[in-house]
Amino acid sequence: MRLALSLARAASTTAPPNPAVGCVILAADGRIVGSGHTQRTGGPHAEVMALRDAAARGASTAGATAFVTLEPCAHHGRTGPCCDALVEAGIRRVVASIADPNPLVAGQGFERLRAAGVDVQIGQLAAEARELNLGFFSRMARKSPWVRLKAAASLDGKTALENGTSQWITSEKARTDGHAWRARAGAILTGVGTVIEDDPRLDVRLVETTRQPPLVIVDSRLQTPPDARLFEIERPVWIYAAERDDVKARALEARGATVHCLANADGKVDLAALLGDLARREVNELHVEAGHKLNGSLMREGLVDEILLYLAPKFIGDGLGIASRPYAGGALSALTEVMALEFTSFDAVGPDLRIVARVAGRDKF
Amino acid sequence: MRLALSLARAASTTAPPNPAVGCVILAADGRIVGSGHTQRTGGPHAEVMALRDAAARGASTAGATAFVTLEPCAHHGRTGPCCDALVEAGIRRVVASIADPNPLVAGQGFERLRAAGVDVQIGQLAAEARELNLGFFSRMARKSPWVRLKAAASLDGKTALENGTSQWITSEKARTDGHAWRARAGAILTGVGTVIEDDPRLDVRLVETTRQPPLVIVDSRLQTPPDARLFEIERPVWIYAAERDDVKARALEARGATVHCLANADGKVDLAALLGDLARREVNELHVEAGHKLNGSLMREGLVDEILLYLAPKFIGDGLGIASRPYAGGALSALTEVMALEFTSFDAVGPDLRIVARVAGRDKF
Repeated sequence: MRLALSLARAASTTAPPNPAVGCVILAADGRIVGSGHTQRTGGPHAEVMALRDAAARGASTAGATAFVTLEPCAHHGRTGPCCDALVEAGIRRVVASIADPNPLVAGQGFERLRAAGVDVQIGQLAAEARELNLGFFSRMARKSPWVRLKAAASLDGKTALENGTSQWITSEKARTDGHAWRARAGAILTGVGTVIEDDPRLDVRLVETTRQPPLVIVDSRLQTPPDARLFEIERPVWIYAAERDDVKARALEARGATVHCLANADGKVDLAALLGDLARREVNELHVEAGHKLNGSLMREGLVDEILLYLAPKFIGDGLGIASRPYAGGALSALTEVMALEFTSFDAVGPDLRIVARVAGRDKF
Repeated sequence: MRLALSLARAASTTAPPNPAVGCVILAADGRIVGSGHTQRTGGPHAEVMALRDAAARGASTAGATAFVTLEPCAHHGRTGPCCDALVEAGIRRVVASIADPNPLVAGQGFERLRAAGVDVQIGQLAAEARELNLGFFSRMARKSPWVRLKAAASLDGKTALENGTSQWITSEKARTDGHAWRARAGAILTGVGTVIEDDPRLDVRLVETTRQPPLVIVDSRLQTPPDARLFEIERPVWIYAAERDDVKARALEARGATVHCLANADGKVDLAALLGDLARREVNELHVEAGHKLNGSLMREGLVDEILLYLAPKFIGDGLGIASRPYAGGALSALTEVMALEFTSFDAVGPDLRIVARVAGRDKF
């Protein structure tokens, strides 16, 4: 099952919006005869890949055991049901980490297997399997993506902006690592302030990828410049506004963007509703790279699940031009209590320190 | 030598102001017949302890090899020269990690051993041995202690003070860990602002210790209250003022403090001179626990070698009463460039994250 899990991990950037799943097939004599993981959208699932692998090796799967990190699907989605494929291949036993939270599967896969006489065992490495697809589980259970806010700061909690120009505070290695996190995301979210100030591309380019996640821009008054560099990238761009401005919207749509209106009572973009909308668009993990205003709003509204923070071994001080903190300051003023998190991991990334901290209890759903 | 080094480590809180040294004696047949480490000030050094250990076991040290993490001393300090003890015990070979930087030793130990016909080999685990006694090496080479600044902050770089009352932002475990760092320090430094605001004891109490490091207070105008709780602890208290005020000084001296005057041109305590003075008082490692003003001054004047930072998994925001950052803000305004550090280590301490970051290049002396 460990092998199946590591295969699943390898699929985490290609699989979305599908969950990343790994499968290993053990013949009756204990030999591994096939293995595979989820392919790109529309491609075969892990189980089918593993069965094909076994077939390619000329190995029989009759009476074999399939180890799979998620319940095999029972429905006709983009592909045929994996359950049927397993049964047809003569698999006698399925060891699965965890049930698929997708209501179209949700135990029906296991039932179907059992009905076909397959021995089913559930629970091996369940926590790890869930963790690997936390975004998918979130979308299914909460109807909202798993929201990961990326920030980079100096040891004294600041982002440096010298002479109004944003400058990288962290190393090339940390930025590359950041792109790896972008690559596994279902979408990347930013605010129009960042678009106007930094004109970023917000794509995946420092690591290899088979897909560019859609870019989501929170832009209440449709101020995104139609000549922004972000339009140079081949991918969906979804702009969420608080009010429809046909002239501006058409200019942006001419650049390939889709413009949505989702206003809250204050005449700004309704961020909670936006997350719901992204879930409907099959976004599992939402990768936020925004400025302190949008970061602060997301935190204040309790919409952030996890912080991905790169800490550079530097002190910035206040005397160095415009120095600002990456999350909010003023934007957090309305927080009525300390926001409690839990460190999930911390690792050296080049000279920098990468911290993943989860909002306490947010993964309990 | 690894064993000798771990023995040395165990002496790091008891040895100061002596370097923490470990010694292991291998008999001619390869068996370990004795081991030991530096005892409290005035007590025997590691070599003598190891020889006594061998004697207590009834083992002969004739022809044996001594592994020792620092050059054996050749001078009559608080104890007799270890070189002589080793020679008398019939040690045939000494494997030492590194030369003693103490000008009273500085190679003379090795010379004396060689003169007595002992085979000397130098360099095994030299970097680790130096690192373990970095404060001692600093005092000898730079005539200044190794200055470690301890701070605790939330993930957004703040220290919370609610309603003017300082509150612990980090966990009990992090505070206990902080006391372990206090315990190994040659002295603890704070500013009068912290004394007045928090009335801290700044002693070692959450971990066991055989000694309470002297407390040093930077107090330009002698505002330390004679009834401050810090006087409740049995240990030297050294107060550094910028001007002598006999009435105030006498009141503090009546509480056991020693008052020194060390003014700079601005009429404040000359911090660089203070460090020199502390080195003369045999302070190897200086543990700083102060407020943002003193922290900022030390950083601005380039006197900080290392940051010991406890990061709590929390966001504080600005709307929660008085929130302040632990290092300076305004006090760092005069920094003309970003202060570059290097992460030395990061470890989970309870729910918190402990980061040790060294000012880049500061350990090269």
